Amino acid sequence: MSNQKVSQFMLEAITLTKKPKINVSPNPFVGAVIVRNNKIIGKGSTRLYGGNHAEIIAINSVKDKKKLDDATLYSTLEPCVHFGKTPPCVDAIIKSGILRVVIAIIDPDKKVNGKGVKKLRSNLIDVKIGDGASIVRDELKEYIFNRKNSRPYFSVKLATSIDGKIATKNGDSKWLSNKKSRSEVHQFRKNVDAILIGSKTVMQDNPFLTARNNDKLYKRQPVRIVIDSKGAVPLHSNIFNHQSKTLVITTKFSSANWKKKIIEMNHDYIEIEAIDKQINLIKFVEKMHDLGFIHILVEGGGKLVGALLRYQLINKVYFFITPQIIGSGGSVNAVDGLSINSMADTLKLRNTSYKLLKNDILVSGEI
Amino acid sequence: MSNQKVSQFMLEAITLTKKPKINVSPNPFVGAVIVRNNKIIGKGSTRLYGGNHAEIIAINSVKDKKKLDDATLYSTLEPCVHFGKTPPCVDAIIKSGILRVVIAIIDPDKKVNGKGVKKLRSNLIDVKIGDGASIVRDELKEYIFNRKNSRPYFSVKLATSIDGKIATKNGDSKWLSNKKSRSEVHQFRKNVDAILIGSKTVMQDNPFLTARNNDKLYKRQPVRIVIDSKGAVPLHSNIFNHQSKTLVITTKFSSANWKKKIIEMNHDYIEIEAIDKQINLIKFVEKMHDLGFIHILVEGGGKLVGALLRYQLINKVYFFITPQIIGSGGSVNAVDGLSINSMADTLKLRNTSYKLLKNDILVSGEI
Repeated sequence: MSNQKVSQFMLEAITLTKKPKINVSPNPFVGAVIVRNNKIIGKGSTRLYGGNHAEIIAINSVKDKKKLDDATLYSTLEPCVHFGKTPPCVDAIIKSGILRVVIAIIDPDKKVNGKGVKKLRSNLIDVKIGDGASIVRDELKEYIFNRKNSRPYFSVKLATSIDGKIATKNGDSKWLSNKKSRSEVHQFRKNVDAILIGSKTVMQDNPFLTARNNDKLYKRQPVRIVIDSKGAVPLHSNIFNHQSKTLVITTKFSSANWKKKIIEMNHDYIEIEAIDKQINLIKFVEKMHDLGFIHILVEGGGKLVGALLRYQLINKVYFFITPQIIGSGGSVNAVDGLSINSMADTLKLRNTSYKLLKNDILVSGEI
Repeated sequence: MSNQKVSQFMLEAITLTKKPKINVSPNPFVGAVIVRNNKIIGKGSTRLYGGNHAEIIAINSVKDKKKLDDATLYSTLEPCVHFGKTPPCVDAIIKSGILRVVIAIIDPDKKVNGKGVKKLRSNLIDVKIGDGASIVRDELKEYIFNRKNSRPYFSVKLATSIDGKIATKNGDSKWLSNKKSRSEVHQFRKNVDAILIGSKTVMQDNPFLTARNNDKLYKRQPVRIVIDSKGAVPLHSNIFNHQSKTLVITTKFSSANWKKKIIEMNHDYIEIEAIDKQINLIKFVEKMHDLGFIHILVEGGGKLVGALLRYQLINKVYFFITPQIIGSGGSVNAVDGLSINSMADTLKLRNTSYKLLKNDILVSGEI
């Protein structure tokens, strides 16, 4: 949290964004409070995708609508001005009689991006921008990145030995990181829209890729995405259980029968153009954006991570480093296939942070 | 430091071991104080190899020898009983009239190992053992290991990227770790007897391998040891400057002229038996012990570290991890040539500690 000034009401609106961490993607988490005579009279936060936005929920929460005449709306994000799954929030605000609107940041979405503020002001509503901006900007960084760059924000999580390996030469990797680290990973999982892994990791580790608290599933489950150009992943793999949805990214080189069975299991697949029989990663990323994924967590393997880094598609990395040495002979590199010549060209992590998880250390940073 | 009880006088003796960090190897650092009527009347610590031991220096520091009649000697280590470069301390203590001796630990050296205590007691001197033992045991851990196992204590220092690489595919590694980390390395260097590296690291990095505070040389300089089985290291390399001594470990496969020139430069070489034209590491370690090296710091490269780990010769590792990604294509592994099958067999670090050095993180542990 920055030192920037933030009013108690905006802070309250920000607090609301942290509560029900269910999947609202592709919408951002937004919180709103309505204030009259220095008292909060209404509250709202964006819930399920397709449901009312935070502002509307806040307005609806005020029973005596007359009180809105003299009220101020605090919202973490600029109110929308376009018809999506719901009518524009701006229209509801104008209609409500609210006199003042305080927002933390302008919505970078092309469909809004200042138009909401403009319409409010042209309807003689007083609009202030910037209260708590740096906190909200940090909280919505994946959403802002997504709307500005038209692609998902990719985070990478890797569990490595202290010498940068993610598995022994037998492919053994259970468990490299400790229980505390793994619990931290599950916390990450429940806050992203999707988890992405390569087919080899599915076949080697057979993970469930669900977000769990010990053995209990969190309410919010990310979509499981597997890149499998040739359709090699066995259909009895754990990712095809029904605790969450799975989306397989494949090419025309996988068999029709295999694809058919994925649909029969109530999961899904998408065919993407291939280059040298491998998924065209740029096309893949475009498709992920079209499907509305804002934040995707990549959990390996090393080759997929290396390829995404090579295409400069990774925004943030999380290395869970365990104090064990695996050595190089045939073991699996954390970042495979990326080839850097000189120290000047290495990928430097920015805004690094460090966290000790019992004996493991988590190093994270932006790229 | 442990919670174990330690008297103020033993603490004073321990403090003395920390002062003049010049090279006393193969002797341990020892401190001694002489106490009469609850007052310290004499002090001593082991200084240069071949000089008087701490106990003798302490006795000599008491001008009025009559005061020794009723005095107690506190020493961090059992007094020696054998003739080395100097006469036995035990004899001097008996002769001095000292009535009581308090020691932290028994000297594990085969030539002492309880014989000092025995001789003191048979001369009616009261001996107490164990005051401050755990502190001294920790402080002298390399010496104790050396005397019990008849080989040097090997520490490894590696500066790695977050994905476990020590150089790019061009061999570039300057500077992977930051200034603060490098300064920490120089602190290590001045406290070891020797620094060991492989010939490739000399040729690639051309390091000085001296212990420096910024550009100023510390008084204590470790011996520089280079393993170079075929005599490949150029004679104009920085390790052959005259800021410290260099010892080259080679085989009969290096040229006579090259060896002659090393001597002419006032450095030294030793020929060791070869296996497949490579140094026999077991013979090498025996030789290092014979030469009296107690603590050797290995600074790479990856192959030498891998080989020493394979032979289970490493006691402690220090990984300076820098938040940069190098990737795998042709880059240099931190631990090369070590090949582990299953997670059960990975080398687990014990008693790990973690230190943040600006953006670098130092992870250290025993193996």
